[in-house]
Amino acid sequence: MSAEPSPATPSSRHGVWFVGARGSVATTAVAGCAAVAAGLHPPTGMVTETPDFAPCGLPSLSSLVFGGHDTVDCPLPKRAEHLAAGGVLPHGLPSAVHAELVAADREIRPGGPLPGDTGRTQDQWIDVFAADIRDFVRRQDLAGAVVVNVASTEPAPTDGSLPPSSLYAAAALRAGCPYVNFTPSTGLHHPALAPLAESSGLPHAGRDGKTGQTLLRSVLGPMFRQRALAVRAWSGTNLLGGGDGAALADPAAAAAKNAGKERVLADTLGAAPEGEVHIDDVPALGDWKTAWDHIAFDGFLGSRMVLQTIWQGCDSALAAPLVLDLARLAARARQRGLSGPLGELGFYFKDPVGDGPSSLAEQYAELRGFAERLRDTDGRGAGR
Amino acid sequence: MSAEPSPATPSSRHGVWFVGARGSVATTAVAGCAAVAAGLHPPTGMVTETPDFAPCGLPSLSSLVFGGHDTVDCPLPKRAEHLAAGGVLPHGLPSAVHAELVAADREIRPGGPLPGDTGRTQDQWIDVFAADIRDFVRRQDLAGAVVVNVASTEPAPTDGSLPPSSLYAAAALRAGCPYVNFTPSTGLHHPALAPLAESSGLPHAGRDGKTGQTLLRSVLGPMFRQRALAVRAWSGTNLLGGGDGAALADPAAAAAKNAGKERVLADTLGAAPEGEVHIDDVPALGDWKTAWDHIAFDGFLGSRMVLQTIWQGCDSALAAPLVLDLARLAARARQRGLSGPLGELGFYFKDPVGDGPSSLAEQYAELRGFAERLRDTDGRGAGR
Amino acid sequence: MSAEPSPATPSSRHGVWFVGARGSVATTAVAGCAAVAAGLHPPTGMVTETPDFAPCGLPSLSSLVFGGHDTVDCPLPKRAEHLAAGGVLPHGLPSAVHAELVAADREIRPGGPLPGDTGRTQDQWIDVFAADIRDFVRRQDLAGAVVVNVASTEPAPTDGSLPPSSLYAAAALRAGCPYVNFTPSTGLHHPALAPLAESSGLPHAGRDGKTGQTLLRSVLGPMFRQRALAVRAWSGTNLLGGGDGAALADPAAAAAKNAGKERVLADTLGAAPEGEVHIDDVPALGDWKTAWDHIAFDGFLGSRMVLQTIWQGCDSALAAPLVLDLARLAARARQRGLSGPLGELGFYFKDPVGDGPSSLAEQYAELRGFAERLRDTDGRGAGR
Amino acid sequence: MSAEPSPATPSSRHGVWFVGARGSVATTAVAGCAAVAAGLHPPTGMVTETPDFAPCGLPSLSSLVFGGHDTVDCPLPKRAEHLAAGGVLPHGLPSAVHAELVAADREIRPGGPLPGDTGRTQDQWIDVFAADIRDFVRRQDLAGAVVVNVASTEPAPTDGSLPPSSLYAAAALRAGCPYVNFTPSTGLHHPALAPLAESSGLPHAGRDGKTGQTLLRSVLGPMFRQRALAVRAWSGTNLLGGGDGAALADPAAAAAKNAGKERVLADTLGAAPEGEVHIDDVPALGDWKTAWDHIAFDGFLGSRMVLQTIWQGCDSALAAPLVLDLARLAARARQRGLSGPLGELGFYFKDPVGDGPSSLAEQYAELRGFAERLRDTDGRGAGR
Repeated sequence: MSAEPSPATPSSRHGVWFVGARGSVATTAVAGCAAVAAGLHPPTGMVTETPDFAPCGLPSLSSLVFGGHDTVDCPLPKRAEHLAAGGVLPHGLPSAVHAELVAADREIRPGGPLPGDTGRTQDQWIDVFAADIRDFVRRQDLAGAVVVNVASTEPAPTDGSLPPSSLYAAAALRAGCPYVNFTPSTGLHHPALAPLAESSGLPHAGRDGKTGQTLLRSVLGPMFRQRALAVRAWSGTNLLGGGDGAALADPAAAAAKNAGKERVLADTLGAAPEGEVHIDDVPALGDWKTAWDHIAFDGFLGSRMVLQTIWQGCDSALAAPLVLDLARLAARARQRGLSGPLGELGFYFKDPVGDGPSSLAEQYAELRGFAERLRDTDGRGAGR
Repeated sequence: MSAEPSPATPSSRHGVWFVGARGSVATTAVAGCAAVAAGLHPPTGMVTETPDFAPCGLPSLSSLVFGGHDTVDCPLPKRAEHLAAGGVLPHGLPSAVHAELVAADREIRPGGPLPGDTGRTQDQWIDVFAADIRDFVRRQDLAGAVVVNVASTEPAPTDGSLPPSSLYAAAALRAGCPYVNFTPSTGLHHPALAPLAESSGLPHAGRDGKTGQTLLRSVLGPMFRQRALAVRAWSGTNLLGGGDGAALADPAAAAAKNAGKERVLADTLGAAPEGEVHIDDVPALGDWKTAWDHIAFDGFLGSRMVLQTIWQGCDSALAAPLVLDLARLAARARQRGLSGPLGELGFYFKDPVGDGPSSLAEQYAELRGFAERLRDTDGRGAGR
Repeated sequence: MSAEPSPATPSSRHGVWFVGARGSVATTAVAGCAAVAAGLHPPTGMVTETPDFAPCGLPSLSSLVFGGHDTVDCPLPKRAEHLAAGGVLPHGLPSAVHAELVAADREIRPGGPLPGDTGRTQDQWIDVFAADIRDFVRRQDLAGAVVVNVASTEPAPTDGSLPPSSLYAAAALRAGCPYVNFTPSTGLHHPALAPLAESSGLPHAGRDGKTGQTLLRSVLGPMFRQRALAVRAWSGTNLLGGGDGAALADPAAAAAKNAGKERVLADTLGAAPEGEVHIDDVPALGDWKTAWDHIAFDGFLGSRMVLQTIWQGCDSALAAPLVLDLARLAARARQRGLSGPLGELGFYFKDPVGDGPSSLAEQYAELRGFAERLRDTDGRGAGR
Repeated sequence: MSAEPSPATPSSRHGVWFVGARGSVATTAVAGCAAVAAGLHPPTGMVTETPDFAPCGLPSLSSLVFGGHDTVDCPLPKRAEHLAAGGVLPHGLPSAVHAELVAADREIRPGGPLPGDTGRTQDQWIDVFAADIRDFVRRQDLAGAVVVNVASTEPAPTDGSLPPSSLYAAAALRAGCPYVNFTPSTGLHHPALAPLAESSGLPHAGRDGKTGQTLLRSVLGPMFRQRALAVRAWSGTNLLGGGDGAALADPAAAAAKNAGKERVLADTLGAAPEGEVHIDDVPALGDWKTAWDHIAFDGFLGSRMVLQTIWQGCDSALAAPLVLDLARLAARARQRGLSGPLGELGFYFKDPVGDGPSSLAEQYAELRGFAERLRDTDGRGAGR
């Protein structure tokens, strides 16, 4: 891997600004983008690299420039080594893309506020964050930047004040950037931000990336409904280590996540079945997660049947390619002048903005329609 | 339940002629049709009872009249008692629909030929079977009949002669009836029957009902492809008792069934992955089947992930509502003048006729389009 | 089945007094005892009917006479019909053993106290219960009776007062009867009852029958330890309907149960691994339960491995034969003059009294040793 | 890691001669022995490193010297790198124990005969192999050597001639070495070798290491029997890549392996249940294997219940510590003058020599008894 300047002209370079820039997902996205751009790995898991998206004028992977906010200090190259030791990144990858990790690491600024932190008002935090983002765009001479929240899930807010995720979201808009919320945290969903979101003229998408159990539910729910089978109870348990496990073992944080999971069932089945969802923090699993679902359903004449699914995946490896997809799609949407909630991106989310379908097949059809909308109608396209 | 004549006028009554009329699926279909028509059970599992199909002019459940061929003697009411003892039918149902079982039993004629049976030529068998069907239609004063193969899977034919399933299929056409093959047996797929199928002007559909593992595969395969995840190996084991388990433990019979299963994967994934499918005869399971699938797939940067599914269902209860759906759809297709392979019924089959999609979502869209085609365009509809 | 008096002489008849006598477990035990005694079913699940126990002088199944306390009214024959409708009892069994169900139903007395019930002091309740039991023994002319708690799990007590399960336990001792606690409720484990338990000279056993997930854990835990494999995390989810599901969905009740489950792991593995246990109330499952366990363990050189188990069983059918075993063993222990905690019955319990082993294999060896102790040493035996 | 001579005196060094010395199991054993001896990893999975075995006088890990036969050329250090790339060995381990891998590699001699190889008679092959082993012992100045077969499973022999595994076994005896067969291949089980085995006065053990599905069966089978539950059908599917997957996909090789698996069930349950075992070659899984078991059993009154297990492990990491255990135990047995089949090692095998128990708990008890027998009775012990 070379650390030389990209051959792309400055104006065709696009920024991706991660909230949670030193986390597993962001680190995997930065390292993976470099690896795929360099041809070291195929773009497995990246929908935007499938042929349907070739004519959309998306920014190329090699044109992406990374930066972000985080409240921790661990340098990205070291973080990548940890991920490789845990089997999340291939061995050898951190050194192969060392230059890109170092480059992204230089563009990470301190996040906040930490609990109890009273040194700044909410508006001051937003200003500081927005200035960080604007500096990034200016310094790197970027065509623009997309802000993507990949930080650990925060507890559902209990008072009226803006939680950190909403401060970052407001900063994104204040800096003129599209905003994508890949987590169940509040982000732009705070009522106090509605006017800003509307007036900004910027596109935004979210929330809560659909990477495992809910992905499955979004294809199995429609199957049961299309076959007129009566789902009686849908129960699930998620085991996950890493930061997300610890964050979601907090019942308040889990509540936000589970709301999205249950919405998928209620929407695709026509009614919410019995059953609970558990999220357990199991540090021994590291960045790997296991989701077990047990679906009790009735067939003809009331016969009792059961489907069980076990999904064993690496959370960061599931999330990172979707995050890259979303950054590219949002950047292009901005370029094409789209604004407001991008409901057609429901394919990616547990709890998508707007009133789109909850079935993955329909969401995929909407995504392809969105790809059509992103094409240059004047035939010039956006070079890759 | 009453055994009184249906209030339907004779010309609005429709025949369903089962090949394998004393088997579990046929018995469940006859008993279940009566139970649902009488309001004893909701129509769980019957897609044709969902609102989208209300305006299609399908024959009502209470207008269906059953008969068929079989090579065994066990009377339907007794067969139904066996199924209730095994938990396939609800207790009490066989007595609640006794009259309907007796009525169907009276319309069952001897099937054939058994191995080594040389008393008739193939053409004579076809003639005898066709006469049985015509007699049924005439005697019951039916608007017509649909022939549905629900017999045990026969071994793949090894010589050029017509296997029994093909004799029945030919008889259906000779008797002027639409033909539906719910099994992997040859049926109308025999090259010697192609001219007859074409010249008959009759609709036909098949083959091999999609009731469990393959149903799942038809939604999971598209999910992996839409998410650009690379399936490396898809392995499966089916455990089933009952007659089907014994029939399919025969490698020759299993070969036909597995071809359908693998076609679904190759079509929906874009290429056939590694992996085998086993079908084990486990008499202890009775009419219940368990299917385990293990799917090894690669995510971003080659991370190794696994999805496993376990499907535990009652084969007859899964099949019977689909069989009723197909009989009604084929009867109506005939009424509307449709002919040839009904490719839009791929939703129901592992190995559908025609070049339709293999993804369940797309098949469901096609099925709804087919429902549109069945509607009366002159606005009178077909009363239910 | 006949309702005639048993040919056994009065003094050889033994009482079994159920706390929770109208529940699923008690009903299944009464019906099943009659069915096995009459030769209608083999004694599957009854360890005391295996050859090792033949020479122990246990009371025969046909010599058992049932009664008990309950706070609900549903007659046993009707309860049995409900269980048959839910698939717990075989169809036809409730009518085949109707006489025995009616006989037991006549011997059920009102339980208590219900929450808020202040009409009697604790001592009065104990007196009333003890009198009920003594009347039963006298009226039926029994050699004695064993009291077995099979009531729904009660919440862990929060103040010093005796919970209902302890009132029944005290009544058992006051009536001179051995006591068996098949539930995680307090029963004799209350410190206030320790002196009574000691001075009574009666044998007692408990607590919390080991019927599914914990049974498995008691063989898998030792396997991991014997193989020197390092269990990192052991996580579990239980789905169950019926009364037990609702009772255990109460976190306070679940806490008692989970303590037993975790003790098994800590004891057999040598240290408690990471991981939680969930108990979900899923009414759609009726009396059936499903337990999923996920065990993450390290092999040689730290390789990460996983074992998962899925146990699908009928709770009452798992419990009832063990309850009959315990009643017989406790009756015989009393007869042989044994007193105090019967630690050798750890085979049956999640959280056994005493310091016995937690591995099922060792518990089974202890149980067989106990069987030896029950034999008449003077060679006369106790006729069966 | 140091490549300096071990401080052990020559006479206390013990040879381990692997048949299949370049395979995954042997490579993992060599690398792992060095890693554990150097304190780089705990001895997870090595039963002989648990406290019960401390006083047995087993050769220490640092005293073991490795060599062997193989028909392939890949150098051990390279093989170890492959295993690390596949996640079988920890990254960094191959370089940490490079010296030990090189040392073992130097002691590997060409194996044979390959199919069609007619250059030597059987007796000549045995002589050559025995000479290789004797040279190893002499050159390394060892106290002795144990021969352990860890080669790929060979097809069951169809004629009377000795298969390769039996030639190696005969060579071991001719060289005066104990022999351990960790595979289902014939080895010493050939009738033509019985006289030699008897007259040699050497101990031997086998066959077919119990590392996954059968290990589970040896604890679950006894559980069902002890609880008097009636197992109706036990079905299993194994998915495995690596060399073993390809070898066992050959039905003839699988037959040998499955015989051992089924013996465990028949022995522990008292009768062989219904059900088949499949072994699929799934190269995508590499050295990882997945075993699914489905156990249909009857409870009280014939209620139908199911236990399913899914075991996901790394074959080499499961096997290697057992192989080291066996080499140490056999070496010590030889030292203590034991000869003939070591039936007390049934803990390690699917199909153990002798008439020992099939339940793991009983096998573990026998193994501990064996450990007792290995102790020096004169109190001097064998230094570690």
